[in-house]
Order: sequence, then C-alpha cells, then structure tokens
Amino acid sequence: MNASPVLINGQPGNLIDISDRGFQYGDGLFETILFFRDRLVLFSRHMDRLQQGCSRLGIPFPGMERLAKEANAVAQAGEGVVKILLTRGCGGRGYNAPAEPKSNRVVSWHPLPDNFSAACNGIQLQHCQTALSIQPLFAGIKHCNRLEQILASHELLNPALSEGLMLDTEGFVVEGTRTNLFFVKADILYTPLLDRCGVEGIAKGWILEQAKKAGIKTREERIRLETLAQADEIFMTNSIYGVMPVVKFQANASIKDYPIGVLTLSFQKAWEKLLQSGAE
Amino acid sequence: MNASPVLINGQPGNLIDISDRGFQYGDGLFETILFFRDRLVLFSRHMDRLQQGCSRLGIPFPGMERLAKEANAVAQAGEGVVKILLTRGCGGRGYNAPAEPKSNRVVSWHPLPDNFSAACNGIQLQHCQTALSIQPLFAGIKHCNRLEQILASHELLNPALSEGLMLDTEGFVVEGTRTNLFFVKADILYTPLLDRCGVEGIAKGWILEQAKKAGIKTREERIRLETLAQADEIFMTNSIYGVMPVVKFQANASIKDYPIGVLTLSFQKAWEKLLQSGAE
Repeated sequence: MNASPVLINGQPGNLIDISDRGFQYGDGLFETILFFRDRLVLFSRHMDRLQQGCSRLGIPFPGMERLAKEANAVAQAGEGVVKILLTRGCGGRGYNAPAEPKSNRVVSWHPLPDNFSAACNGIQLQHCQTALSIQPLFAGIKHCNRLEQILASHELLNPALSEGLMLDTEGFVVEGTRTNLFFVKADILYTPLLDRCGVEGIAKGWILEQAKKAGIKTREERIRLETLAQADEIFMTNSIYGVMPVVKFQANASIKDYPIGVLTLSFQKAWEKLLQSGAE
Repeated sequence: MNASPVLINGQPGNLIDISDRGFQYGDGLFETILFFRDRLVLFSRHMDRLQQGCSRLGIPFPGMERLAKEANAVAQAGEGVVKILLTRGCGGRGYNAPAEPKSNRVVSWHPLPDNFSAACNGIQLQHCQTALSIQPLFAGIKHCNRLEQILASHELLNPALSEGLMLDTEGFVVEGTRTNLFFVKADILYTPLLDRCGVEGIAKGWILEQAKKAGIKTREERIRLETLAQADEIFMTNSIYGVMPVVKFQANASIKDYPIGVLTLSFQKAWEKLLQSGAE
C-alpha cells in the first residue's frame, strides 16, 4: 500500500527508524498538498501552517526552499497529492526530546483519490459520535496525533461519498474528519471558530479571503448542531478536493436534503479558476 | 540513540515502513514493562491494558503468548525496560484504516534509566502549564498520541529528578507526565479519577489493590490543586520506577517540602517485595 516516490531527508526510501518520535508518539506535523498543472497549489500557505506548527511544538523547520525542492521532485510522478510529514526526529529519553532535535522529513507522492471528481458533485455529511477534545495548545495546527479523526472515520457508513461531522466534547460543531465546514444562512457565510480544536485548513483560509474580497459577510463563531441544520447551503473544503457541496446531512435519526447553493457554486468556480490559472 | 535488541513482528530489525499508521498518525498503543530478576514484572496486567486499548481502538491484538515470547527474547539483554509498541499496521486511505488491518508490533529492550535508584529517594513535582484535554474515549489506555506529555516534559527544569504534574483543561489534577499520582490526607489514600483523561497505570492499579488489602481507605475522585497542596504525603508511581516519594512540590510561585510519609514507605517496601519475590 506504500505509494511511491518517497524522499526521506532528501534520499529515496520508504523505511524509518523505529526510534523516530513520530512513530513512537505521533510527535510530528504534516501537510497534504495538491499537485495540479505542474504546480503545488497554495504551497506557500501550506508552508506557513507547517512553520507555525513547528514553532508551536518546538520542532525545527527544515526551510521552505528545501521542502519545495523535494515536493517538486516527488511530484514529477504526475497530478496527485504530495504529503510532507515532519517529525521531531529520533531519540530522547521517553517523552523528553533530545536537547537539539534533528527533524526527520518524509516527502511522498500519492495518486488523486478515486472519488476526486465525484465528491465535487455533492457528499453526504454524517454526524459522528466521536468528539474532538478541547486543546487550545494544538488548535489550528496539523499535527500527527490523529486518533480522534481515525475513530470518527470508522463511523462513516459510506466513506467514499460521505464525510463525518465532528463536534467538540462540549457539543459545538468543529469540522469534518478531513475537511473544514462552511454554511450559508441569510447570505452570511459561517464557519466554526477553531480556537480550541480543529485544523485551520488551507482551503478554508483561502475561501474566507475570497468571500471577504467579494463583499460577502463572514462569521467565525461557535456553532450548535441545530443551527447548522437550519442552513440554506452547506459545503466542506480541503486542499485536495477544494469545495464539496453537502447534499444530505444526517444527524441522529434524521436525514435532510440540501440544495447546492449559489454561494457554494461560486466558491467552486473560484477554486476551479485557482487550479486552472495558477494565480492565487 | 536506537536501543537494541528489537523484534519487529518477530524479526530482528529497527526500521518500519513509513506507511505504518503509527508513524503517520500515532495510530497505536504501547506498554513499557520492567524486566527484573528474569521476570517481566506484572506482565499479565500490562497485557490486559494493551488488550483493552486494542478493543477500544479496533486494533487487532496479536495474542499474549506471542508477545510474552518476544518480550522475553529481547529481555535476554538483561535487567531493563521492555517496550511493546503495537500499531494498526500499514496502509488505508488517509484516516480510513484498511477494512482488515494487520497490526505491526515492535518489541524492544532498553537499559534502566540513569536515575532509576535516585528517584526512589525523592523527586520534585512541578506543576506544568500544559494541560490534558478531556477525551473519555481514550481515558485509561496507553495510546501513541502523546504530544501533550511531550510538551509538558519540555517544561521540566530538572527532568532527571523531577516530574511534571498535569491538570486537565478544567483544572483538575490528573497525573504526572509518565506517572500516576497518589496522596495521603488524614490516613486516606487519594488518587485522581481517570475517567476523562490520563493513563490507568499498572503500578497504580497494583498499589490500590495493596492498599485495599491492608485495610487502608482509598478514594478515586476529582482533585483540585489546592487539595493536593494540603496533603500529608505525596507519591508518584509507574511500572519502571515503582513508588517515587515527592519531597518538593512546586505550584505557581511557591515551593513546599513534604516528608516521605509512613504510607509511602510501606508501598515502597511492598513494591520492593514484589520485585524480589516475583509473586504478585
């Protein structure tokens, strides 16, 4: 199941030392980046988030130029997904890291997911029972402690064309297992505030900017499940799929249909234009 | 920094495929077991916890006999620590695991920590700012999502002879970064309730049983920092060090000294007897 090609600290390979702290403790960060039309889409934004994560966790950042070079090298395989995984490196005594950790970086290429196009025509959103714990220290960054997302993904009845909606342990709506959430109500674009948990998606940030540029009112706030259910349109975003309209939303025993709304379609078009033009 | 010997799925080696879900997401569990006088101390209890973790996360348990065989094989290196790390194995599509995952197991031997004896004479407990998030789904089990413990360990001013006290995000006392906490007040033995976060330590469970057998009143409950500060005696436990008396407790700006109390000493003796006699 190992996709190729892979560069580990710049060298081809697919094995890592078991003393790597990523393997021992999930002590690392990652980015998944779309490679499309010979371009790593929104690459500098991915680097900004990775660097923020490094700074938050105290992991040395290997530098954007080096990562760009390695990401472009593996991306010669073709359109697909480039994953950059950066760990605190090997060693240390138990949880204590070495005083001067040397990070390990794994840059790998993967084919586009099978459902890449289909998901853009509409997905089902399913409320997961697995909740996100509240931990402001890690809110926003894309770290490698992902057991919550894994258990939530296991709940999905139809993983190919559905996404799991995750609430925090206090019952507020946060995000999908691998996506951010947006919804529209009375021409206002809402998305959950991610100050206590959740990942600040690169596509999410980009969409919010486009909305503001277009004069659309936006709100990032704590959102209840009942509020979401009353939305006019709902869509999910991530760096690989772009904008995925939600056409069905299943919460508890009820399933409700949603139209693909005007704003959702306009953001899909803007994303498509970004992919085609190469301009940010 | 890689300790040897190591068995990976029963074979000598120290490399793991980067597609292993432990490396990608911390999707695994581990146990650290003391090997002393030719015996894996409290081994069957470690296996019980590992099996509970497997059942909670949906990771296939490779069987106690196989793990015992491999643990004893690496332990031929001598007195030390045997670590068993079990992941959900390789592959899957993102967070989605393969429908029938094949777990990977890494069984490794490590020397006893340098401060093995010194810690039994007394350690300093330091209140860490890094809080534990509340996640009942993972409470009690020893999974590989350990970023919180890593950041807390970074706060320690003197890692060799101190331990970090971790509170949950609501301010209740939970545990040390790699230990469980006990304290005595008016002849009652207290330890935090671990129903929302924290690891159910093997030594902790054993100590509680000894206390009950000896007719000592025990209470597992939510504990405030102020209550802990008023204790008559405080000690920390884990499977490697056994019972570590707390002789100084630093919370915020204040440092307070504590005597090594009568109950602490009696549990140290009981643990020593367990190690020497080999009987549970």
